Amino acid sequence: MAFIVQKFGGSSVADPEKMRRVAGIIADAYREGNDVVAVLSAQGKTTDGLIAKAKEYSPNPSKREMDMLLSTGEQQSVALCAMVLQAMGIPAISLAAWQIDFKTNSNYSNAAIKSVGAERIRRELDQRKVVLVTGFQGVNKFDDVTTLGRGGSDTSAVAIAAALHADLCQIYTDVDGVYTADPNKVKGAKKLDEITFDEMLELASMGAKVLHNRSVEMAKRYNVDLEVLSSYERKPGTKVRRANKVEQAEVSGVAKDANVARITLIGIEDKPGMAFNVFRILAQEKINIDIILQNLGRNGVQNITFTVSRPDAQKAIEVLEKHIDELGFAAIDLDDKVAKVSIVGAGMMLTSGIAAKMFDALASKKINIDMISTSEIKVSVLVREEDADKAVQAIHDKFFD
Amino acid sequence: MAFIVQKFGGSSVADPEKMRRVAGIIADAYREGNDVVAVLSAQGKTTDGLIAKAKEYSPNPSKREMDMLLSTGEQQSVALCAMVLQAMGIPAISLAAWQIDFKTNSNYSNAAIKSVGAERIRRELDQRKVVLVTGFQGVNKFDDVTTLGRGGSDTSAVAIAAALHADLCQIYTDVDGVYTADPNKVKGAKKLDEITFDEMLELASMGAKVLHNRSVEMAKRYNVDLEVLSSYERKPGTKVRRANKVEQAEVSGVAKDANVARITLIGIEDKPGMAFNVFRILAQEKINIDIILQNLGRNGVQNITFTVSRPDAQKAIEVLEKHIDELGFAAIDLDDKVAKVSIVGAGMMLTSGIAAKMFDALASKKINIDMISTSEIKVSVLVREEDADKAVQAIHDKFFD
Repeated sequence: MAFIVQKFGGSSVADPEKMRRVAGIIADAYREGNDVVAVLSAQGKTTDGLIAKAKEYSPNPSKREMDMLLSTGEQQSVALCAMVLQAMGIPAISLAAWQIDFKTNSNYSNAAIKSVGAERIRRELDQRKVVLVTGFQGVNKFDDVTTLGRGGSDTSAVAIAAALHADLCQIYTDVDGVYTADPNKVKGAKKLDEITFDEMLELASMGAKVLHNRSVEMAKRYNVDLEVLSSYERKPGTKVRRANKVEQAEVSGVAKDANVARITLIGIEDKPGMAFNVFRILAQEKINIDIILQNLGRNGVQNITFTVSRPDAQKAIEVLEKHIDELGFAAIDLDDKVAKVSIVGAGMMLTSGIAAKMFDALASKKINIDMISTSEIKVSVLVREEDADKAVQAIHDKFFD
Repeated sequence: MAFIVQKFGGSSVADPEKMRRVAGIIADAYREGNDVVAVLSAQGKTTDGLIAKAKEYSPNPSKREMDMLLSTGEQQSVALCAMVLQAMGIPAISLAAWQIDFKTNSNYSNAAIKSVGAERIRRELDQRKVVLVTGFQGVNKFDDVTTLGRGGSDTSAVAIAAALHADLCQIYTDVDGVYTADPNKVKGAKKLDEITFDEMLELASMGAKVLHNRSVEMAKRYNVDLEVLSSYERKPGTKVRRANKVEQAEVSGVAKDANVARITLIGIEDKPGMAFNVFRILAQEKINIDIILQNLGRNGVQNITFTVSRPDAQKAIEVLEKHIDELGFAAIDLDDKVAKVSIVGAGMMLTSGIAAKMFDALASKKINIDMISTSEIKVSVLVREEDADKAVQAIHDKFFD
């Protein structure tokens, strides 16, 4: 007997048949004697449909009214799911965010969670009801409806699990767990039984779109045990937990991120503070920088190379060119045919030679490394985009075969 | 400068074009310097669509969850209307029933209004905003969503007007006012400039489906001036007010109600209390009786005739036959080819000869009168259904030509 928070995404509840499958999962957990809170997203493409509808009424709808509109999607989901559970003989009640005092700040469309009331949910659980809560939404201090932004339902579930001290927060999705690499692309990719929060964060930020990063960060902060598992298959998924609960593998996964562009400022004056100026100007425009390489100066000039996400690349160049007098570089070079390949592993910091093993794998396939970046639990390299999949496979073979 | 509550039904806000027309009406009232609260129904067939959807998920959904589901319809309406007004440069804010503390009892799907909070609406009006409020819905003392039943948005508007002491409650509909008779059927039917609450109640109960009866009763109780007018034409409608504010006509309107069946108990024992027994038994089954005719007894037996609404007729007969031993009648006769024709007028009680003038009109067209019922402001007659339209026209010609 445990207290479980379950989260089901929009595609898992898109139609009556899928809703009944989800209700079956919830009902099983309930019948095993657990306290169950299920957090649901809006069904299927409901949210997109409402956004499109709003555009028919106003070219530029206010975020406050958009949130008021969009929040109806999850409310419909939870009411319908309660009906299905009741028809199965399971006592269930739907609650919208405002009914459980799910408080956020007033940043409409992308609100941050402030607190979650426990009282109403506990009262319903004490009556042995399944509690169905709207994901993705909250209310601000004026009782106006807010939404948490895309992927916010994961975060809703973790916040509820944290506030009510649930034993486990299960995130049901259309994959059955976290893999050592993308199983659609890499031969021999294996499902992980468990992984640390930090590893999950690194993998998520590299495009392994299993969990929303905000939800993992919140789970880490409040020490909420997560499990990622499939809505379609009844089998254990991947547990995401604190490092001390996880058997730490040297390397947990290999990931590719092709959403990268490399920019080089050529012939910039080699004096202290120039790099700082470049990155300050970009930061003011909210352009994030990932890997940085500063060549040694020669003849009083140097090159500064860095990577940004591809959609930011053009803007970054425009911003830098606007400041050419201040920065005094000779030319800018853009290369958007690159990709980042990374290995992640919480056990890495305890083991030497991990990076060397990765480079060896790449060298054996004659793949050139352009830039390198390391952290305590990650090694990333920049390679040609056309080499990226081969690189991932080679590294995966080296560590997991 | 006045404080006006406006109500717009589902067909008036069904699509972007209609919503813009409604927003235009609201904007005009606002720009004239008035404080404006607009109460909206769900768009078009939204509520019916949600009911049909619920049936796909459960054969017999609970009323609590149904109300949770249906209430999303009005929330979408008010959010979209706020977007349209904002795009027109009018400051507007949408509020759901729970956000204004619109309290009802817990009779899900047909809840009664307990109280309406004034604070939030006043705060927004003080900031010179148009306030858009969801009709048809409320919250009970547990903060669970309830709905008021069909036509409830009229009642929502009147309740808000009463709670905030508005100067006028305007009910916008697809007709432009209250007529002396159904303008689609009766030649010479005229729009009334004004009418009393009691007249409106009698007309509404006879099938003049302009205003929901509950809303008129509430307006009468709290003395809220109503106006019924068209969403499509910009012209004055019909004012519904207290008797002392209205120039009282002898007869305000003629109405037909074909939803009537006549039942006769033949050969019932002629002793005190028998009629009472009949009506007690029917009341226990919640069958309402309208006109009653008790013939004089002859040879120790009598006939009792009464009318019920047609959908209740079969049930009434079954109930009475079940009690045949107790009631001791010889036979039951059902006639469902009858209709009720009525004249209504608050000035009637001050004028003699009104009923005679009505009977004269019917006699001149050789229409037989089957039963008669009178109240202070109404005379009703039962006629053959095939004569009903002719009867209405003859009476209307007599009083209004």
